[in-house]
Amino acid sequence: MTEPLRLGIAGLGTVGTGVVKIVRQKANLLAARAGRPVVISAISARTRDKDRGVSLSDYAWEDDPVALATRDDVDLFIELMGGSDGPAKAATEAAIAAGKDVVTANKAMLAHHGQALAAAAESAGRVLRYEAAVAGGIPVIKALTEGLAGNDITRVMGVMNGTCNYILTRMQSAGLPYDEVFEEANQLGYLEADPTLDVGGIDAGHKLALLASIAFGTQVDFDSVELEGIEKVTIADIRHAADMGYRIKLLGVAQMTGRGLEQRMSPCLVPADSPLGQLEGGTNMVVLEGDMVEQIVLRGPGAGEGPTASAVMGDVMDIARGCRLSTFGAPAAGLQQARPARAATPAPFYLRMSLDDKPGALAKVAAVLGEAGISIDRMRQYRHDDTIAPVLIVTHKTTRNALDGALDAMSRLDVMGETPVALRIETV
Amino acid sequence: MTEPLRLGIAGLGTVGTGVVKIVRQKANLLAARAGRPVVISAISARTRDKDRGVSLSDYAWEDDPVALATRDDVDLFIELMGGSDGPAKAATEAAIAAGKDVVTANKAMLAHHGQALAAAAESAGRVLRYEAAVAGGIPVIKALTEGLAGNDITRVMGVMNGTCNYILTRMQSAGLPYDEVFEEANQLGYLEADPTLDVGGIDAGHKLALLASIAFGTQVDFDSVELEGIEKVTIADIRHAADMGYRIKLLGVAQMTGRGLEQRMSPCLVPADSPLGQLEGGTNMVVLEGDMVEQIVLRGPGAGEGPTASAVMGDVMDIARGCRLSTFGAPAAGLQQARPARAATPAPFYLRMSLDDKPGALAKVAAVLGEAGISIDRMRQYRHDDTIAPVLIVTHKTTRNALDGALDAMSRLDVMGETPVALRIETV
Repeated sequence: MTEPLRLGIAGLGTVGTGVVKIVRQKANLLAARAGRPVVISAISARTRDKDRGVSLSDYAWEDDPVALATRDDVDLFIELMGGSDGPAKAATEAAIAAGKDVVTANKAMLAHHGQALAAAAESAGRVLRYEAAVAGGIPVIKALTEGLAGNDITRVMGVMNGTCNYILTRMQSAGLPYDEVFEEANQLGYLEADPTLDVGGIDAGHKLALLASIAFGTQVDFDSVELEGIEKVTIADIRHAADMGYRIKLLGVAQMTGRGLEQRMSPCLVPADSPLGQLEGGTNMVVLEGDMVEQIVLRGPGAGEGPTASAVMGDVMDIARGCRLSTFGAPAAGLQQARPARAATPAPFYLRMSLDDKPGALAKVAAVLGEAGISIDRMRQYRHDDTIAPVLIVTHKTTRNALDGALDAMSRLDVMGETPVALRIETV
Repeated sequence: MTEPLRLGIAGLGTVGTGVVKIVRQKANLLAARAGRPVVISAISARTRDKDRGVSLSDYAWEDDPVALATRDDVDLFIELMGGSDGPAKAATEAAIAAGKDVVTANKAMLAHHGQALAAAAESAGRVLRYEAAVAGGIPVIKALTEGLAGNDITRVMGVMNGTCNYILTRMQSAGLPYDEVFEEANQLGYLEADPTLDVGGIDAGHKLALLASIAFGTQVDFDSVELEGIEKVTIADIRHAADMGYRIKLLGVAQMTGRGLEQRMSPCLVPADSPLGQLEGGTNMVVLEGDMVEQIVLRGPGAGEGPTASAVMGDVMDIARGCRLSTFGAPAAGLQQARPARAATPAPFYLRMSLDDKPGALAKVAAVLGEAGISIDRMRQYRHDDTIAPVLIVTHKTTRNALDGALDAMSRLDVMGETPVALRIETV
């Protein structure tokens, strides 16, 4: 095939602009690699007259992304508007119905409507790809779907929200409390318009749900992701964790168990000297584990114009080269409905509590844990000046269920101060 | 396409056996992911009657790999015999001539004959893939060729020989000299039959040459890789480097400069707290840098039955799914002949020398460096008991050419003991 691949791009924020720049500035390179030209036919964005640092006059303009998506001179529709519903979804559906392939960076749309969109694309003989939706510039969808296609995937893990990792590592390095670093990140423009998407783990949860679908051949099931944000992580937890050789990360983990699919996105302790523990700032990292390949670790920028545009172009080039894969690595009709399992894989846990400084207080806590069948690996009581003693406990492996029972019983003890903090320690 | 993809596998060592196991044990998974069955028609190996832990009775047997490669019931020939020439090359050529696709793990064959084989495959409308040839289970060929296809690649780096990394990290952790750890690695079966392939950097150099071809659109040019093995790395160098915050790695670097293509595989110092510096044991790591994506780091097992078979299956599944890429990421006819440039990118260097312990000795060395235009960043003279003073110098950035001139002049100084050691410090 040597006819040009003709793109229609909807959404000209940083990523869309980055894609336009690549297609303009690397025309020869792309043509050499794809064996055919890659060109832009038409574009669409909310605002037409805005200096984006790149000339757009060669391209037809559409105010309406649906009109763009269905143009005769567009072979591949690139959706970079964002939003789980609304124009992004309408234009994607229209593109598929009009026989166009689609590339998107829209994790929210795919997390909520991925199964339906994938099925529609496959019925129409079209492809729907989204490398840029997960972990920015890291080609992780490709690695998992294609590179590890000969593996039964056993676990997928990742730090996939750069903003959260920035906040957590900054709290540690600068010794600042959460609120202050949050405000700093806000000033720097690192946060989404709705910051809960970042710090509540929702954005990272979307990404995890997409990876889980590919890994385990299940329909995307974002609603079953157990979400816990980083808002309650304190500088004290970060310091105590560091004292014991750990780092706190907003870690996503998906694994298939005998009881069903576990998907959780929550602050976890990981060993400070592991690749995940060493990950600082806004960088992303995904760990893929398979029965054959053992463990692959991928690290790279999780956001930004260049890296995200690079990921979009990876998909575009696949399509230009005639590589046409199923959205989730296997035909959508064959994907099983996931049986969600509340995180049941046993793990050690980190517990921080405040006890009244009086005889027998610790014995009561230990008794509660013992009754729940939870044994203690390590315990530390820190020096303190007032009548409340900060106590840390690292348990041996236990289930979240058993732990929740113990936490409930503890909260009723007359020696317990504020509600204990419990964070999972992930083996990596 | 729903007809089965029929494999012919030549070479049933650990990797070949691993591939047979995957195809047998994961038939349903592979069929679901590929949309068609993947089956084995025929096999070939040096020894027929040998217990490989998997039943081979379902498959036709060929003593001659060329006969296997050209069978009517083989669509895809998998070459896992090894060796740059001989039966591996003959069977690969025969397979292509007979209209078969080829997957191989043979870095030596591709480093020496990659251009000719790629051209032959493309003329015949066949594909030739080799993910398993570079960095074992890490899907790095895929990441570079496909995931980063929208980038001008600026630099490719990697620790791609697990045996060398095992030796270097073991020297450091156990405080043992090279010869002793080499013998240990030999006993453990980590070394190739000809250990120079490992410790001389040749095996890793093959891999680097393949990555450079994809990265820069040039014909594979292994002969221009500047090779330096790890045989001369001493425990003293490892300790001194650690003292200054570095680790010594057998590091491959390929980059395109104004003067041409630099390819070098040599022991280098890298920061101890960088991903490359933290890489221990037999694990591999590849760093890919592009103008858009910035930096991607891939880490995983560089050898072994499971990981290498996983990489072979990645290629098999691509072909089963109809993804048919050029061998080096662009049509072979369009690849430029590389203009090799002796490593000219300036870098700081680590120098270790033994000076006679008499007044003015250091001044003479400093004068030689000064005359060569090389300035000193850091200098250490260690306490010593005899008349020879061990001296370490870290230079500011300089070229290898200027440094070689200075080393030559130094060797003629009357205060100089054994030949100075010079190792590049790579910015990572």
